Amino acid sequence: MSGFRHVVLFKWAEGTTTGQQEEVAAKLSELPGVIDEIREYSMGADAGVNPGAYDFGLVADFARREDYLVYRDHPAHRAVIEQYITPIVAERASIQYET
Amino acid sequence: MSGFRHVVLFKWAEGTTTGQQEEVAAKLSELPGVIDEIREYSMGADAGVNPGAYDFGLVADFARREDYLVYRDHPAHRAVIEQYITPIVAERASIQYET
Repeated sequence: MSGFRHVVLFKWAEGTTTGQQEEVAAKLSELPGVIDEIREYSMGADAGVNPGAYDFGLVADFARREDYLVYRDHPAHRAVIEQYITPIVAERASIQYET
Repeated sequence: MSGFRHVVLFKWAEGTTTGQQEEVAAKLSELPGVIDEIREYSMGADAGVNPGAYDFGLVADFARREDYLVYRDHPAHRAVIEQYITPIVAERASIQYET
């Protein structure tokens, strides 16, 4: 099924607590219930297999580019970013591609 | 369905040609036919929506962590990395997480 995929990886700042990381995952996990445009939503903390890996990854699938933009700019999403993610981010890597 | 996900993003070095980038995608696309452990394999070039995005992303799904390790260390995979990816990589970001 063709669509549009958003991928984002984060490295958390030194001193970030497990609780803060779990809160990010918990808050993000609420978004599919709020933003109908999300088709698939998968996330997880690094499994610790490879040195140098990022700490947290999220893959979100949409039917089309426009649906991703709705998600990107949705107030509920922006609120999670501003309140829970931005305060603890050290590095961010992302891409969007057509599937 | 639970499993194990590998995500990797690349930024290509300045001067990398479109042909080189397409060759990476073409060579990687052959791997699911060679490495049985790959359950799902999705990749794409950045759609150009957001500034600062990485240039190329790949999401690979496996039934279990051990299957990812088979893929990671498989000679056919290593050959693509060494011959086509390493020569043009500027930055790499990756994570593995349980799904």
